[in-house]
Amino acid sequence: GRPADYIPELARADRGRFAIAVETLDGESAAAGEADAPFSIQSISKVFTLTLAIERLGDALWSRVGVEPSGNAFNSIVQLEAEHGRPRNPFINAGAIVVADTLLAGRRPAEALAEILAFARAAAGDDGVGFDTAVAASETATGHRNRSLAHFMAAEGNLAGGIEEVLSVYFHQCSLAMSARQLARAGRYLAAGGGGLAGAACTRRVLGLMLTCGHYDGSGAFAFRVGLPGKSGVGGGILAIVPGIASVAAWCPGLGPGGNSVIASRALERLAAETGWSVFAGG
Amino acid sequence: GRPADYIPELARADRGRFAIAVETLDGESAAAGEADAPFSIQSISKVFTLTLAIERLGDALWSRVGVEPSGNAFNSIVQLEAEHGRPRNPFINAGAIVVADTLLAGRRPAEALAEILAFARAAAGDDGVGFDTAVAASETATGHRNRSLAHFMAAEGNLAGGIEEVLSVYFHQCSLAMSARQLARAGRYLAAGGGGLAGAACTRRVLGLMLTCGHYDGSGAFAFRVGLPGKSGVGGGILAIVPGIASVAAWCPGLGPGGNSVIASRALERLAAETGWSVFAGG
Amino acid sequence: GRPADYIPELARADRGRFAIAVETLDGESAAAGEADAPFSIQSISKVFTLTLAIERLGDALWSRVGVEPSGNAFNSIVQLEAEHGRPRNPFINAGAIVVADTLLAGRRPAEALAEILAFARAAAGDDGVGFDTAVAASETATGHRNRSLAHFMAAEGNLAGGIEEVLSVYFHQCSLAMSARQLARAGRYLAAGGGGLAGAACTRRVLGLMLTCGHYDGSGAFAFRVGLPGKSGVGGGILAIVPGIASVAAWCPGLGPGGNSVIASRALERLAAETGWSVFAGG
Amino acid sequence: GRPADYIPELARADRGRFAIAVETLDGESAAAGEADAPFSIQSISKVFTLTLAIERLGDALWSRVGVEPSGNAFNSIVQLEAEHGRPRNPFINAGAIVVADTLLAGRRPAEALAEILAFARAAAGDDGVGFDTAVAASETATGHRNRSLAHFMAAEGNLAGGIEEVLSVYFHQCSLAMSARQLARAGRYLAAGGGGLAGAACTRRVLGLMLTCGHYDGSGAFAFRVGLPGKSGVGGGILAIVPGIASVAAWCPGLGPGGNSVIASRALERLAAETGWSVFAGG
Repeated sequence: GRPADYIPELARADRGRFAIAVETLDGESAAAGEADAPFSIQSISKVFTLTLAIERLGDALWSRVGVEPSGNAFNSIVQLEAEHGRPRNPFINAGAIVVADTLLAGRRPAEALAEILAFARAAAGDDGVGFDTAVAASETATGHRNRSLAHFMAAEGNLAGGIEEVLSVYFHQCSLAMSARQLARAGRYLAAGGGGLAGAACTRRVLGLMLTCGHYDGSGAFAFRVGLPGKSGVGGGILAIVPGIASVAAWCPGLGPGGNSVIASRALERLAAETGWSVFAGG
Repeated sequence: GRPADYIPELARADRGRFAIAVETLDGESAAAGEADAPFSIQSISKVFTLTLAIERLGDALWSRVGVEPSGNAFNSIVQLEAEHGRPRNPFINAGAIVVADTLLAGRRPAEALAEILAFARAAAGDDGVGFDTAVAASETATGHRNRSLAHFMAAEGNLAGGIEEVLSVYFHQCSLAMSARQLARAGRYLAAGGGGLAGAACTRRVLGLMLTCGHYDGSGAFAFRVGLPGKSGVGGGILAIVPGIASVAAWCPGLGPGGNSVIASRALERLAAETGWSVFAGG
Repeated sequence: GRPADYIPELARADRGRFAIAVETLDGESAAAGEADAPFSIQSISKVFTLTLAIERLGDALWSRVGVEPSGNAFNSIVQLEAEHGRPRNPFINAGAIVVADTLLAGRRPAEALAEILAFARAAAGDDGVGFDTAVAASETATGHRNRSLAHFMAAEGNLAGGIEEVLSVYFHQCSLAMSARQLARAGRYLAAGGGGLAGAACTRRVLGLMLTCGHYDGSGAFAFRVGLPGKSGVGGGILAIVPGIASVAAWCPGLGPGGNSVIASRALERLAAETGWSVFAGG
Repeated sequence: GRPADYIPELARADRGRFAIAVETLDGESAAAGEADAPFSIQSISKVFTLTLAIERLGDALWSRVGVEPSGNAFNSIVQLEAEHGRPRNPFINAGAIVVADTLLAGRRPAEALAEILAFARAAAGDDGVGFDTAVAASETATGHRNRSLAHFMAAEGNLAGGIEEVLSVYFHQCSLAMSARQLARAGRYLAAGGGGLAGAACTRRVLGLMLTCGHYDGSGAFAFRVGLPGKSGVGGGILAIVPGIASVAAWCPGLGPGGNSVIASRALERLAAETGWSVFAGG
């Protein structure tokens, strides 16, 4: 695999780095590799913003973004044209930009970002989590494709905030830096069905979307091979959830053609095979 | 919803009919409505033929058919052109025709159909299961769209058998008539992780594909609302699996715009809500 | 360029062969290369069948086939799905199959083919023109892609005749064998505005469609470089018309990526440059 | 037809207004309706900028923009994604934005606009031609779709200038206000094969592109019905050229579904029928 090269700051990542961390609901922790090294979680942040948006808007959210796999790449604009500016799901870039717009909600970007950061810190139980402003600046400088998506949705009336305000939220949320251990801890609320941070109805929906759409056009293969709801990021991280049991984070910067970490996927496949963890295997 | 109107024999279905049947792995049975009335299971048969094809070919199957949601309607040909005759997944029509081709495997259609029928009877534990030749004849007479898909794949070299032989297998498998109770029983091997009819690796893959692709372009919504692997048919039936716990079949002929039974979906959503059954809710 | 390889009989063509023939309305003839060697005119026959269909149906034809460039390859099925089985124009394969269906009109294929042959012979003024049954048989045996198009249109209700009857007309018309000299003569009626074979309104429409759609997805480049209405065939032939002045046929079997003869295109570009013939150059 | 409603300033146009003006190369003039009333020529300006770009860059232009009909709407982004940011032709919006970028060429927008204005004035022989800054401001304020196209091309490396600089050129060129008489005069250089403003090779190419791509997804129908190279604008104007003979401008604000003036098209169709003017009818 190769590191993402369209965000200059990420292209410098060393593809030899690796980490995996497991946090069970019983309170056990396990980790291997550089489990305390922070990396850019990128699109994994969409799990947190989607949780916040569902809690904020409920089912009204779905009038603006769909819940179906797209059958296209994560940054494709084709579907937006065919479907009048309503993104297929909240995990492709266009959908996450709409989710960011719902969190902006007339506020200044800094306010929405403060809410997102507070959520990530609370989920991880660690105030050391923060934005990586160099990464955010790098995306801001080169994000033509995301601007194209945002302007397209604005033209179709599916963006309430100003383009740069919405993208400022989006680019910063993607720059969240977390270690594998912090990320695994942050995912426990999904394994636990909410746990004070969200309702059970919300977390089931987030997990359903992770399983069907969490790996873009490689979601079917991940469901098929790993059998767990997961969300990948182009920084090389993947968050996978074992409902009722555990939260797992894996990281390795080299990406396959679909934009998902090759080694982190394999590590999770192997972990699932050895533990028997799978939503498709009964108790 | 409205009954499927593109197959004349199905268009006569009475949309007021309804059934639901639950079979637990503990041996308990429950049913409501016309649970012993046979209906045309149509695309739900793809679950059985996929199981047979995986057991027969193993991972070699995936060179001919993919494992990703398509983002298109069940009978769309657009994706085939873009991806050189390799269907996105085994549950869209083109993919199921390829699966039928792998089961034909140089034999006469009657031999492949005997194998499929034997599997369905063994799974249901009921030799009363059979093909509905009137439905098969109706599809044979009007199946231009499926012939278009088959010729397209033949042009791309992804069909080994003769067009009419392969389609004879496909049209007959889709005409399988089962009651909700028979269908729920037939699904127990998926809930049980194989149970003598298939290996555990095979059933997990089938369940993964059911969750991501089992309701065509409504798969995300079903995962989201019901939270169980399911497979729908245009006869109005849906088979849903609770891994390790139960197999459920629901039936009502009226279909929504995506080709899935509206009432059967809602019945399963309500059942899932009341029992708490969901692959996204930890035990 | 390379000879068409999807029709076995054409794949044997020698790419070193070449001919060009010019017939002016003043009665002058000029030719170079193997101008009396017959070749398979393939899609150039669509010009003749379109003329017959317009004369037969008038504007009623356009309810079944459009008049716009497709932006896709000659055998693409994508547009048919998006536009409900109505082909973009009469020169892509799907459109020509619909035109063949209008000429079949309830008759037996042999009757429609006799009418097409009589037209081609009258236009060329030469009863030596005939079908190449080996080529027709070759296409019949391997024409899965065209069968896919035909079944798709039948599914959408845009085909009146039986699939094999319509395709028999289509495959035989494409097998018409003519020399460059015969083809150039056959095109005179288009340069002359009808001349007993068609009305002036009809020939203008045929020429308009040749200019915008006659070279599939290379139509713009041909209009741009040559500046004349033209129609290409995968046998390597091109018919170009200089309205009011002349008809020109060029032939060389090697095709470019768009399915048009590379050398025949260049020969016509050079002829146009040296004569000044162009519909875009006044008087 | 209805006036364009996506540009607020144009939506106020009175659809009852009409004008037609003919200027022959012999020096004769004829006009009817409000032939001296200025209107927003919008996309007709692309004819002038394309002429300037061909004269400036020659065939190097075609590495950045194609010459084929798109088969899509004028503002579609689908083709850009499939073809890596290279617009199909210079008359769809994306293509005209690339052409504007080549004219900007490192200069300030005001310099490029001065060159465009000088060309339009010279072609019309009238220094009264000017930009309508209210229209340009209206497009600047609402042009999300064009910004989406521009950012997409920038992401693919097919835009050299800054987004806002390039769009400033594009929005202003589209705001050119001309009367039917001025526009007909301005088109004479195309009928004349250059006439001091461009070379003959350039004007033939512009006319070829007008015929195949000048009316977006209605180009085939215009070639078919009118038989002349033409270019439409959403302000309701159409410029049509009779090579060697005349330049014609027609105007009526009501647009059909494809974005072309319904009444101006019909007026040109009738004029062509009565005069016999057609590039498909020999002298």
